[in-house]
Amino acid sequence: MADPQIEVILAPLRANVKEQGDLVRKLKADGAPDLDIKKAVAELKARKKILEDKELSLVPDAATFDRAKMEDLLKRRFFYDQSFAIYGGITGQFDFGPMGCAFKANLLQTWRQFFVLEEQMLEVDCSILTPETVLKASGHVDRFADLMTKDMKTGECFRLDHLIKAHLEKISADKKTSNETKADCSDIIIKLDGMNKAEMAAVMVKFNMKSPLTGNDLTEPIEFNLMFGTQIGPSGLIKGFLRPETAQGIFVNFKRLLEFNQGKLPFAAAQIGNAFRNEISPRSGLIRVREFTMAEIEHFCDPDDKKHPKFVDVAQTEMLLYSACNQMDGKAAERVKIGDAVEKGLVANETLGYFMARIQMFLIQSGVETTKLRFRQHMANEMAHYAQDCWDAECLTSYGWIECVGCADRSAYDLTQHTKATGVRLAAEKKLPEPKVIDVVEAIPNKGLLGKTFKKDAKIITDALNLLSESAVDDFDKQLQGKGSYDLVVDGKSFNLTKEMIEVKKYQKTIHVDEITPSVIEPSFGVGRIMYAIFEHNFKMRENDEQRTYLSLPSSVAPLKCSVLPLSSNVEFQPFIKKISAALTKVDVSHKVDDSSGSIGRRYARTDEIAIPYGITIDFDTLKEPHSVTLRERDSMNQVRIPLEEIAQVIHELSYNKTKWTIVEGKYPKFDQQENKAT
Amino acid sequence: MADPQIEVILAPLRANVKEQGDLVRKLKADGAPDLDIKKAVAELKARKKILEDKELSLVPDAATFDRAKMEDLLKRRFFYDQSFAIYGGITGQFDFGPMGCAFKANLLQTWRQFFVLEEQMLEVDCSILTPETVLKASGHVDRFADLMTKDMKTGECFRLDHLIKAHLEKISADKKTSNETKADCSDIIIKLDGMNKAEMAAVMVKFNMKSPLTGNDLTEPIEFNLMFGTQIGPSGLIKGFLRPETAQGIFVNFKRLLEFNQGKLPFAAAQIGNAFRNEISPRSGLIRVREFTMAEIEHFCDPDDKKHPKFVDVAQTEMLLYSACNQMDGKAAERVKIGDAVEKGLVANETLGYFMARIQMFLIQSGVETTKLRFRQHMANEMAHYAQDCWDAECLTSYGWIECVGCADRSAYDLTQHTKATGVRLAAEKKLPEPKVIDVVEAIPNKGLLGKTFKKDAKIITDALNLLSESAVDDFDKQLQGKGSYDLVVDGKSFNLTKEMIEVKKYQKTIHVDEITPSVIEPSFGVGRIMYAIFEHNFKMRENDEQRTYLSLPSSVAPLKCSVLPLSSNVEFQPFIKKISAALTKVDVSHKVDDSSGSIGRRYARTDEIAIPYGITIDFDTLKEPHSVTLRERDSMNQVRIPLEEIAQVIHELSYNKTKWTIVEGKYPKFDQQENKAT
Repeated sequence: MADPQIEVILAPLRANVKEQGDLVRKLKADGAPDLDIKKAVAELKARKKILEDKELSLVPDAATFDRAKMEDLLKRRFFYDQSFAIYGGITGQFDFGPMGCAFKANLLQTWRQFFVLEEQMLEVDCSILTPETVLKASGHVDRFADLMTKDMKTGECFRLDHLIKAHLEKISADKKTSNETKADCSDIIIKLDGMNKAEMAAVMVKFNMKSPLTGNDLTEPIEFNLMFGTQIGPSGLIKGFLRPETAQGIFVNFKRLLEFNQGKLPFAAAQIGNAFRNEISPRSGLIRVREFTMAEIEHFCDPDDKKHPKFVDVAQTEMLLYSACNQMDGKAAERVKIGDAVEKGLVANETLGYFMARIQMFLIQSGVETTKLRFRQHMANEMAHYAQDCWDAECLTSYGWIECVGCADRSAYDLTQHTKATGVRLAAEKKLPEPKVIDVVEAIPNKGLLGKTFKKDAKIITDALNLLSESAVDDFDKQLQGKGSYDLVVDGKSFNLTKEMIEVKKYQKTIHVDEITPSVIEPSFGVGRIMYAIFEHNFKMRENDEQRTYLSLPSSVAPLKCSVLPLSSNVEFQPFIKKISAALTKVDVSHKVDDSSGSIGRRYARTDEIAIPYGITIDFDTLKEPHSVTLRERDSMNQVRIPLEEIAQVIHELSYNKTKWTIVEGKYPKFDQQENKAT
Repeated sequence: MADPQIEVILAPLRANVKEQGDLVRKLKADGAPDLDIKKAVAELKARKKILEDKELSLVPDAATFDRAKMEDLLKRRFFYDQSFAIYGGITGQFDFGPMGCAFKANLLQTWRQFFVLEEQMLEVDCSILTPETVLKASGHVDRFADLMTKDMKTGECFRLDHLIKAHLEKISADKKTSNETKADCSDIIIKLDGMNKAEMAAVMVKFNMKSPLTGNDLTEPIEFNLMFGTQIGPSGLIKGFLRPETAQGIFVNFKRLLEFNQGKLPFAAAQIGNAFRNEISPRSGLIRVREFTMAEIEHFCDPDDKKHPKFVDVAQTEMLLYSACNQMDGKAAERVKIGDAVEKGLVANETLGYFMARIQMFLIQSGVETTKLRFRQHMANEMAHYAQDCWDAECLTSYGWIECVGCADRSAYDLTQHTKATGVRLAAEKKLPEPKVIDVVEAIPNKGLLGKTFKKDAKIITDALNLLSESAVDDFDKQLQGKGSYDLVVDGKSFNLTKEMIEVKKYQKTIHVDEITPSVIEPSFGVGRIMYAIFEHNFKMRENDEQRTYLSLPSSVAPLKCSVLPLSSNVEFQPFIKKISAALTKVDVSHKVDDSSGSIGRRYARTDEIAIPYGITIDFDTLKEPHSVTLRERDSMNQVRIPLEEIAQVIHELSYNKTKWTIVEGKYPKFDQQENKAT
């Protein structure tokens, strides 16, 4: 990444980014109009993209990586493939076959050990079908909308921003187009990201846009929610969505979880489960799909104390950090110790830093290549308004750097939103260093009278009163004393409350705890994307034989740990196969017996394809006492000879990281069989 | 179950059932009209229900079981609870909290070890969103419809059969009702199960039925599909459903799976995943819900050879079988060895019998009580028309006997249906004992001409030709030669095919394999129901203390394996807590440190509630060298004293069934602390 020759090529592009980054900073400092900043940011992004594309094109093995070859292997050996293919298939949906499913299950099991068990997190398993009210409060109903347009005749859909961009680029590329129009086009393209429905509709009309496929007319822009809608219950009255993320299930259970944790902060809850997004045009295989598995952690902590007791254990971890600042300056990502990053304030707090380090360890242990992993900080304009800091773990693939894990400090946003929507206070108590005396102003409703007067709205009113701030109650009291009544507005509805209905009490009390709304640090894992990155990082070819491709998955996540291969179909081998298979099952080692007729070399090649790390061969020497077998390791293709009664235990230890191949190689005699010649 | 006193009470009810069972048999033998048989079967069911209700009321502990108390514990300690409760909740949806989720994860992990690993099944993980065409072929679009009616004003929904039954029972109970009307009512109730939409509509009119809640008018019967519908993709053109079972994902992948298994039969595929049914009125807690986890196995085998190589290993297993014959005769279920049951033909074949025995072992190992488990055979009228035999594993709970696992021989139904719908042959090759020469008659389309003539219908035609039987091709040929053309009817559409379009070839060929459509044996596990049964079977009270309730879950599925309890908050205990916790994590033992201030007895009681089987206490003796701790077992409440450095390994072995508590008790000195007094 710091090759001087490459840096020479990149230098002007970096300068280009920095120039624009500085402009953005200046505009912000000067309090320039919003639109000018937006435009400058869009240009900054465009320059960053040019820099990144150039950088990627210069990575040595990116050029030689053969994605089609890898995908052929994954499809042929049914790691995964398109769902419902015999019915024509559905884009953006995939089925995991035996090897993909086992890899996924092992990856999730590793995740559970690494996070839930190690940190004693509270794992939950919540409903997928979610009522609209919940997702309205979380912001998804409003935020998850894309604009699209439909071909009036065929019904074909297009994402409107993509369509406009393509259309304008085509016009710009046309020699006959005037310079003035070209400038107009590039101006619109830059602003596109921030345009609303009416603005985009105007652009469509101005350039008389038609369907690029048929030339047919297009509909007005349509708002399309990326969530799958359905009705819960037969009456059609409860509108629901398939959850677009698993996190909300944790937030709505916050009270129960806090209680389970005996009221104490901090604690983390976790969930593994499926989520759904009705992408307009899914693409890039496992990377952008309609149905996907997530593993999410919500760590709840005191907003004023985001220290982490185990941070010292990870402080020395070196990570490749691509800070927002470096992105603005056109600089490269930097290798930094996470301890230093937190100390310098580059990473917002210890808890965020702790999780970033743990995420890195998990990914590398599961097969992500260290050199192809970076943490990119969200720039201010990318981050949700409530987020305090956000770093994405990105993996380098043939699709570029893809986000695999997000790690954000979401502050108190989610709990606050659900509190507002339900009137149920999602908060925790924090013990004060010493008791303090406070003034209390409280609006106490006369429930009987309220009920009589407002019927079912009475609950809305009491909920609203509950949520009033102290100063609001004060204000309230003044009006009651003055005018004798107060108009309380809830959700746009006004209620006239009289003195008889509400008593405002003022008194002092001694409190021992403060009520706080916890901050949430959220590491959120896209399981399919991680799997895809691991596939790419572990797809290998044997030296001198491009046809012999294999997957070098770490044994802890490999779908099967071991193969059992009799040298031939000789019946004398049968009892040994049975015995070894039973012994492996007993020590929880998943394995595959391949007694098909191919040569041993061919069969090894087949097991290499499905990433089996170890292979046991039963040969004629096995029949002799003391019985023994050969054990072969996938990546080195080295073999050793091991006594029959030790083999299951050795493989168990290799599979569960309790020993290493080099140790096994040192302990047992080397076995020389020329497997390549046997092919 | 064979208490003579109870049998005296049940005898007349048994005779009552047998009388009706014999009538049904006679009617069937005589070829009586369908309606008469239906009516007799309905009466048979009613009598069976009376017998079963009586039987259940006589089970000793059924009377004393306190469901409310158990549900209070499960809710209070957040095993599971209603989803979205702070938003008012949705019936039929539940969230599993930390303890429920861990129990579920352990149960599924046990399932995976017990079935997938042990039998080397091909586990897959398929899409939940399923296009309509797939579920049309599988029969779900048509079969999964219930009739309902809505309150015209409030929109409240009622399941029509439930509504009619309740209404007529109310009329019958009224003293003023004439005997004639009463007879009419009971006649309708008996026939209700087989009534269609028009017949039910007529009953509604005849008895002038209104909403039982409001007295408002009701709508005509409405067909309501129990599947949740949605649209896939933005265009709204692809109708889809949330899958109502996981099995179809396996069937549509049959070809890929067969290929993965190198073309060999038999093999089994398995899947764990969520499925959804939009129940009209969900009830009974976890038993009838809208969103649930299933674990399904599809074992594909030669229809002419359903032997199982490992059947000998289970043949001696005793099982409580409630055969269709005994149900007709009013007899009790019988304890039979599965080997004998298959030999006598009571269970259709070895593979079905093998799975039944394995299901029983799995359930008992996971905490189902042996005496509360039976296998009930479907009676001819309950079974799907394609099923050859079907046995449900039923668990006895306070809701009666509930189906937890279905185990059916579904013959070739599913693969045949998908073959018909797609034209893709889902079949396997079976090696013939010796090659044979066969006559081949084949209709070969002139694809160019067909395409020209029929445009996009050409594919439908070639698919249909592909599926024609030999005799149909023969017939086809005769007409072509005679009339010069043939009208091929596909899906109600007729295509006139001429001699020029189709060439019929007749020749002989030598074949080495037969093409067969495999039979499917399907064990299908309802995970939530199994969990519920296990909760009930393991909910216990301490002798002499009704308030001290606990769950005696087996350690292999218990949410946490161990608690770590310092006797007091003395700081000297801290390093020991840390050390023990780290040691337990290292050997994969999930645990919970409870250093809250309650007495040790109170804290034991709290850990008993969440089913933690083992508790480590750190006391003042722990501080002395050689360091030691006490280990307490939940069910017996016995304690032993164990050296500190051995404790993690001992609990690891206890947790994963590698040793037993009685062995540990024998090995280490007993520790006497009066925990009850300490409360």
